[in-house]
Amino acid sequence: MIFSKKCGYKALIFVAVYHSFQLHLPKINKMSLLSVGTVAYDKIETPFGQTDKIVGGAATYISLSASFFVDQSKIVSVIGDDFSTDFLAKMENKGINLEGLQIKEGEKSFFWSGKYHFDMNSRDTLVTDLNVLADFDPVLPESYQGSDFLMLGNLSPEVQMKVIDQLTERPKLVVLDTMNFWMDIALDMLHKVLEKVDVLTINDEEARQLSGEYSLVSAARKILSMGPKFLIIKKGEHGALLFNDDRMFFAPALPLEEVKDPTGAGDTFAGGFIGYLAKTGDISFDNFKRAIIVGSAMASFTCEEFGTERLMTLTNDEINDRINKFVELVNFKF
Amino acid sequence: MIFSKKCGYKALIFVAVYHSFQLHLPKINKMSLLSVGTVAYDKIETPFGQTDKIVGGAATYISLSASFFVDQSKIVSVIGDDFSTDFLAKMENKGINLEGLQIKEGEKSFFWSGKYHFDMNSRDTLVTDLNVLADFDPVLPESYQGSDFLMLGNLSPEVQMKVIDQLTERPKLVVLDTMNFWMDIALDMLHKVLEKVDVLTINDEEARQLSGEYSLVSAARKILSMGPKFLIIKKGEHGALLFNDDRMFFAPALPLEEVKDPTGAGDTFAGGFIGYLAKTGDISFDNFKRAIIVGSAMASFTCEEFGTERLMTLTNDEINDRINKFVELVNFKF
Repeated sequence: MIFSKKCGYKALIFVAVYHSFQLHLPKINKMSLLSVGTVAYDKIETPFGQTDKIVGGAATYISLSASFFVDQSKIVSVIGDDFSTDFLAKMENKGINLEGLQIKEGEKSFFWSGKYHFDMNSRDTLVTDLNVLADFDPVLPESYQGSDFLMLGNLSPEVQMKVIDQLTERPKLVVLDTMNFWMDIALDMLHKVLEKVDVLTINDEEARQLSGEYSLVSAARKILSMGPKFLIIKKGEHGALLFNDDRMFFAPALPLEEVKDPTGAGDTFAGGFIGYLAKTGDISFDNFKRAIIVGSAMASFTCEEFGTERLMTLTNDEINDRINKFVELVNFKF
Repeated sequence: MIFSKKCGYKALIFVAVYHSFQLHLPKINKMSLLSVGTVAYDKIETPFGQTDKIVGGAATYISLSASFFVDQSKIVSVIGDDFSTDFLAKMENKGINLEGLQIKEGEKSFFWSGKYHFDMNSRDTLVTDLNVLADFDPVLPESYQGSDFLMLGNLSPEVQMKVIDQLTERPKLVVLDTMNFWMDIALDMLHKVLEKVDVLTINDEEARQLSGEYSLVSAARKILSMGPKFLIIKKGEHGALLFNDDRMFFAPALPLEEVKDPTGAGDTFAGGFIGYLAKTGDISFDNFKRAIIVGSAMASFTCEEFGTERLMTLTNDEINDRINKFVELVNFKF
């Protein structure tokens, strides 16, 4: 079963024997996870169709994706009284603790509407109604203290900092997601938050903007000097790159027969990534690599249907099959 | 040294032990290689500088790249009497047989000039002087008959077909490179050539154009019904995808600190790919994967300097180190 090939003076043994690989998915309470981000309504148009108002939001995707790996998941967010109570019940059924979700009477939930171009890699924002998000002041319930892992989904750096400041004990791992918008209007505060996190996830254009470097290798070096020890550059359909010190890891995105709607794919990735880390309780570079593969697998599901639809029907067997597809996709041996 | 982890009912053993891996690079005469393509002059401008007239051309890059793996390499091409005899001597020193290289007295070599945009992924063509290429009629020397592997570099499908037609015996493997230009103006002839080849290499936009499908998975399925058994989709800095039946393999491009000039990277990839296949004499799917990693490693070198400069100074040790970097870049285990 094992191939050994000697070439020249040095030897490589590179072996991959897998009939089928299975993550042990029934949840293990290794680490508790706290996620911060939007819970919102989206209206999406892609070349493959369009939706009415459907549930979206960073914290929604993060917590749903992570729910396949952890059962101690809490969220901090804000909605209006227009938000679907049915959907909230579904989230609670998946073990997501909503104690830190503020519901503002007489106000409306954050609403975003966008239209994707034919290439699905770019989109135009049609509507952004901040609504409850305009003056969001996150409040951490006492029961949230002591969370092991913190996922700061895309929100203003000020809100992200307020959450960090309320924690009496620093989590074992803090992951930050942000976007070009905050680099444009709140760069100073973003830099302050960056000093307090372990992992930053941004896309390639944002990495270039934040660093002022075109080469992603050079960009990563600069960004890793701003605070985070790990940088994950998300390249959408082109995969994801992980940087840590001088180490680099690349995970592809799974080429899909059909991408219906990429909305939430980045947050689903983040949820799978930190969910897997929390489940295993291991924050070594090698486990980061596995977590990125898991996150990529989760993100590929979200793209297959509009909104959170696919995450709602997803099974553990499907996740295992998908991770095996990733192993097959990149596996080679010399 | 070997890790085995049982998860659930099924088992995965995924082991990677490599201190350092070394290809046995001193050449072995497994298979002979015949390459067809341009030998030409380029003038290149990138954000990092610009060149005078320097040597370029598909057959140049292919044969130089392959010369690290095979010593029975022959080319079919055409130049004018303006072409550098020094450069021809260098090619011969690398074991490249130039008997099939026509030198047209009183005529000029093919000349291309282009300017790359800041992102290095797109470029404008400034000048295309066909010169000797305008009425190129390839003639196969008798000594070229019996070549094991045939690499048809980017040229008009008519010229590619003329080479195929002159072979008295079908090579064991025929690889075809082409581009959108020929899909625009010579699609019928391109389809005829496609029926006669084993492997097609094109970029993602070309795969979409040729198939009329946006999804690369769907595009691949259509293209594999046109003749080739293997399709390699080159995505530049985003890596390469290999399709064969329902199998898929992905190899990343190595993220580089600095890309000076990507001209010839695709041809260098093709030369490394077919050179490695010819060296090993193994055309299994698993060896195709290795060949794609080797091709990607070779292409990464070409990007580091203008034109063929980097290939001219490249050593076997550097190739081995680079291949190790690819193994590290994508290696993970569950």
